[in-house]
Amino acid sequence: MNDAQSVIKNGAVAIKNGKIIAVDKIGKIQSSYKANRMIPGEGMVLMPGLVNGHSHSAMVLFRGLADDLALQDWLQNYIFPAEAKFVDDNFVRVGEQLACWEMIRGGTTTFVDMYFKPDVASQVVNECGLRAIIAPSSIDFPSPGFQGWDDAFAAAVDFVKRSKGKNPRIIPAIAAHAPYTVSPENLKQAIEAARQYDVPLTIHLAETKTEVEDVQKRYNATPVQHLENLGFLEPRVFAAHVVWPNESEIALMAKRGIGVIHNPDSNLKLASAFAPIPAMLKAGIKVGLGTDGAASNNVLDMWKAIRLTALIHKGTTLDPTAVPANTVLRMATVGGAEALGLADKIGAIKVGLQADLIQVELNEPHLIPIYNIISHLVYAANAQDVDTVIVDGKVLMQKRKMLTLDPERIRLEATSIADRIDAELRPNKDAQL
Amino acid sequence: MNDAQSVIKNGAVAIKNGKIIAVDKIGKIQSSYKANRMIPGEGMVLMPGLVNGHSHSAMVLFRGLADDLALQDWLQNYIFPAEAKFVDDNFVRVGEQLACWEMIRGGTTTFVDMYFKPDVASQVVNECGLRAIIAPSSIDFPSPGFQGWDDAFAAAVDFVKRSKGKNPRIIPAIAAHAPYTVSPENLKQAIEAARQYDVPLTIHLAETKTEVEDVQKRYNATPVQHLENLGFLEPRVFAAHVVWPNESEIALMAKRGIGVIHNPDSNLKLASAFAPIPAMLKAGIKVGLGTDGAASNNVLDMWKAIRLTALIHKGTTLDPTAVPANTVLRMATVGGAEALGLADKIGAIKVGLQADLIQVELNEPHLIPIYNIISHLVYAANAQDVDTVIVDGKVLMQKRKMLTLDPERIRLEATSIADRIDAELRPNKDAQL
Ligand SMILES: [Zn+2]
Ligand SMILES: [Zn+2]
Repeated sequence: MNDAQSVIKNGAVAIKNGKIIAVDKIGKIQSSYKANRMIPGEGMVLMPGLVNGHSHSAMVLFRGLADDLALQDWLQNYIFPAEAKFVDDNFVRVGEQLACWEMIRGGTTTFVDMYFKPDVASQVVNECGLRAIIAPSSIDFPSPGFQGWDDAFAAAVDFVKRSKGKNPRIIPAIAAHAPYTVSPENLKQAIEAARQYDVPLTIHLAETKTEVEDVQKRYNATPVQHLENLGFLEPRVFAAHVVWPNESEIALMAKRGIGVIHNPDSNLKLASAFAPIPAMLKAGIKVGLGTDGAASNNVLDMWKAIRLTALIHKGTTLDPTAVPANTVLRMATVGGAEALGLADKIGAIKVGLQADLIQVELNEPHLIPIYNIISHLVYAANAQDVDTVIVDGKVLMQKRKMLTLDPERIRLEATSIADRIDAELRPNKDAQL
Repeated sequence: MNDAQSVIKNGAVAIKNGKIIAVDKIGKIQSSYKANRMIPGEGMVLMPGLVNGHSHSAMVLFRGLADDLALQDWLQNYIFPAEAKFVDDNFVRVGEQLACWEMIRGGTTTFVDMYFKPDVASQVVNECGLRAIIAPSSIDFPSPGFQGWDDAFAAAVDFVKRSKGKNPRIIPAIAAHAPYTVSPENLKQAIEAARQYDVPLTIHLAETKTEVEDVQKRYNATPVQHLENLGFLEPRVFAAHVVWPNESEIALMAKRGIGVIHNPDSNLKLASAFAPIPAMLKAGIKVGLGTDGAASNNVLDMWKAIRLTALIHKGTTLDPTAVPANTVLRMATVGGAEALGLADKIGAIKVGLQADLIQVELNEPHLIPIYNIISHLVYAANAQDVDTVIVDGKVLMQKRKMLTLDPERIRLEATSIADRIDAELRPNKDAQL
């Protein structure tokens, strides 16, 4: 499957120096190229690796800690206290490793990480072989290691300066948390720094109805319009969520060329609502998919986000032809790459792009029989059907075996950190068991 | 996990003659019972098998044949022609085997099959060891092997008479397709036969807005009220979908004690909409979960239905505490058993119930770390995490290996049938490849 629009039966791909140099029927490739290494593909689909446009990766260590709670209860009584107390270098190292394990296992090859400790995160990404946009999150309030915006933002800019261009798989970026948690002055600083260092900028935007009301009250503009008023919107910006834009804001986002990352699992679990994806696609906005963090999903599983996206917008529009399978698969691959500004590098199986590829095995009963591969990938496949993951031509997983991470050690270290969190935040948990 | 409300750490279950005879901490069980066979459970959750309250199992052979189409296009140009041409004994045998393989693989231990050729379906269920309510579907129009209601219904009643009480794992039932496809007289025949032979009755009900408008126009009553007017509603009845009941119909269903099977995947894929599950639960209706057929889902995967149920109603109500994890897990197990009238036999890990149990392995990264088992089962687990399936004390799958079905043969036979369907219905499919 090369770009969610077409499928080559019995196809093959030739890779050299991490790049795709030929895509054709297997016979043609075999007669034109001699390979040092061949990876068989019988009974599998070869497709572009999935692009996870929004995550807070290390938060996998909070997976399942607190569900089914009102947003403020969840944030104030669980997530913020847990972050303040536990997020240090070791937490991010182990959390990032667990997240990368989960993402490689499920066929994600590029992800956006909006979190803390970007040097630690970058080291894990470098070692495990994934591709990532690392965007340390700056916010006007205290966050792990910082008093507020000034020191957090200075450290983020320092990270961007030090990291840019150092590793072709790691793209540093600026992240401003959200319009309701970052002042107009600080938002301006953020976009100016992104321009100065020519890096992407990401932000949470119009996630909840409450945010829209808050921003409207404080700044006399809805969130997207508020950013427009600050001169913030341009193609280097990609925004997560955008559940509550109004019609003119949808047109504005299309006009300014910003990317939008749809996070359906998180939007539903936190009861933010259903983002108007059909309208955004119709307006020509570059829409990608994301998982958000595992505290609000609870998995970094793009297949779940894909299927949810294909289903829920049919429900809200009462139109069974809304957001069809190939549109969703495009959002999860080349659409995401466009939203992140990476479509010249990744997102499709096309000569000249980096070889970020996955193989999905079709041998489990839920994928039998086969009429339509794209349908199976969107409506039936699971993360566990992914067999092989390749980034930049390097094999990170083959036959479901992790080649660059040590799962047993990660499990032990993650469990040990979780035991400490549990003892602190839920001292009576054994009463529940 | 015994009933979705409580979890016993280091627990064990003793089974004798297919029934649960003790549930306790492992030490207590080991000191009180001597077993011929022990199944280890380290690193796993033992929980009640999942109850799939609505399916058309053999339709797995149409999986992915036609997606993203308007309902009438889908039915008239794909499903009905395919059924008319291809649904024979061999189709149902192979389709039922593939469906049972998929359901065992994913931890379903009881399912409702509303389809054709009930003797063939029963034989497959008998051989593979699952538990099922087999409900041959009767409709006023021609269906595979039948001219219309009269011969279809006569054959269904004959099946019920011949099968009742023959195999404790197979419960024959009456199925009337829907209020808009079965006349009032025939609906009355259906409920009378169900009473006469003391079997369950199932029906599609209030699935689409169009159905509500049609039934209102023809019978001057909304669908649930229409059935009430016919004296149709009583505890032996369980209805699939019920997406569009009004407030008084919700109260009526609670009062009459009918079961409702929620099929969120199918309701969204066909754009039927979001069933008002929070209101139905609040009214005290017995609500279970179902997958519907694979032509409209596209999988018989209860984990996907579980997760979707936990997410979508938070989105429609804007309440993150709506339909919490343990409520959904209850719907997928003991709640489903109640809706089907089987709660005295299955649905929980409780002394005296049949030993229908599954083990879910917790070793993949998406289930690490563990704070809350119920959260993992609802928000993170996949069908492929299921390791062991036991029905009536008999092991049907262990270490993910099928013990009662032959996957390789099923795959070949299913593929061969699909090739013929594809050649007939999509003669130009290679153009798409
Ligand atoms: Zn986020
Ligand atoms: Zn149905």
